[in-house]
Amino acid sequence: MLDSVLVFSGLDPCGGAGISADIESINQFGVTPLPIVTTLTVQNTQSVKSTQTVDAQLITEQFNHLKEDVDFSVVKIGLLSSKSQIQTIASLLETCEALTIVLDPIISSSTNQQLLDEQALKSLKQELLPMVTVLTPNVAELNALSSTEDEQQAIESLPCEWVLLTTTDTSKNKIEHRLYHHAQCVERFTYTKLPGDYHGSGCTLSSTISALLASGVDVNIACKRALDYTYQSLLSAKSIGKMQYHPNRQAPK
Amino acid sequence: MLDSVLVFSGLDPCGGAGISADIESINQFGVTPLPIVTTLTVQNTQSVKSTQTVDAQLITEQFNHLKEDVDFSVVKIGLLSSKSQIQTIASLLETCEALTIVLDPIISSSTNQQLLDEQALKSLKQELLPMVTVLTPNVAELNALSSTEDEQQAIESLPCEWVLLTTTDTSKNKIEHRLYHHAQCVERFTYTKLPGDYHGSGCTLSSTISALLASGVDVNIACKRALDYTYQSLLSAKSIGKMQYHPNRQAPK
Repeated sequence: MLDSVLVFSGLDPCGGAGISADIESINQFGVTPLPIVTTLTVQNTQSVKSTQTVDAQLITEQFNHLKEDVDFSVVKIGLLSSKSQIQTIASLLETCEALTIVLDPIISSSTNQQLLDEQALKSLKQELLPMVTVLTPNVAELNALSSTEDEQQAIESLPCEWVLLTTTDTSKNKIEHRLYHHAQCVERFTYTKLPGDYHGSGCTLSSTISALLASGVDVNIACKRALDYTYQSLLSAKSIGKMQYHPNRQAPK
Repeated sequence: MLDSVLVFSGLDPCGGAGISADIESINQFGVTPLPIVTTLTVQNTQSVKSTQTVDAQLITEQFNHLKEDVDFSVVKIGLLSSKSQIQTIASLLETCEALTIVLDPIISSSTNQQLLDEQALKSLKQELLPMVTVLTPNVAELNALSSTEDEQQAIESLPCEWVLLTTTDTSKNKIEHRLYHHAQCVERFTYTKLPGDYHGSGCTLSSTISALLASGVDVNIACKRALDYTYQSLLSAKSIGKMQYHPNRQAPK
């Protein structure tokens, strides 16, 4: 009955990132995604041309109507796009008991367009982060969420129980992702960096973690398996557009 | 490069129908879904409470930006929600050469809410149906699209090359779906009717057909395999809400 994940995410018409990545990843782990779209983007593998924020009132109605009927205990949050939307979602989630929340703090697209303004970022830090169980920033996002570039200090400044810091954005050949629990580094995961740029790897990672948590897997094991699955999807990535590769989210091996 | 399907569909937060069904089905066949949302619905397994039409201008921008970057030759169309939206999508598709279009003519939800008004239905018949390669109506939809309840006459009145008529909505124990080519019945597919109501079976069927066509499978074989896959997803359906069962779209067997 609880084998589902409520997803707040953006719609990316090229299907690499956003709600497509979330639905594909969660479904591939046999869990049911419950999708609520926060932002409709005009996007391809080369750029995000524009975005349209989905009305907070509609999101409230979708959430309440869904909650009357379907149980969920895990929430995955991806792209959010305004202060009022973030406040609305935080308020809605506060009405639920014992939620496990996985947040991928998307601030810019992987094609480097800014997706969250200063006010929204502030609201995300103040109102949403304290509710988050697992945060999955890359190095740039960790820096934006804290006021220091010192990794340990930055992690300590965050109120989230678990932080899985991915370091692809600052690594050259070897990548070392680090998992923190109550600001203590508890695991390190190393991978060889793949050539090329990929569109939707962060969404694949965070939604896979959420699917595994919904299946009852412990956080540290969920992070390891989700990193492996994301790597698998990148190793078999497809070229569907002119620029970034498309993670191939097939059955986990 | 063309192993993709452009999808126009509604967003259903309970994930049974709409863009979730399309993304899951198409992805399970190894094809890339390119999702454009036409309608944001407030929906659960019991009812469609309300719908919000996505602006035709935004859909145009999404389509054009995607088309600049990603090639596609198969389009799957599900829920549409206004006359102007249908006209816009028909005009956009007319700019493409040699498209294969699969249309699931959604007029009401499976929980019996009307989703397409008279004007929109008229526009769908006049402007979109002539472009459609494979139409997948159930009996109620076939009747609504034609001015007769005589099946053969109704099929003859449609301008689509292929019509896969599903008859679950009028069958009791045995179901016989019929495939028409140029208004000639060329194949019959029989199944035992399953107990219970299912949310998203029509979306699963039409999107699976589109994925198979994108993979180069012939229409009659695609229809048979898609019917089998849909049946498989219903046989293993999940109960996630209080009413309709949720098709379990896992790897095709």
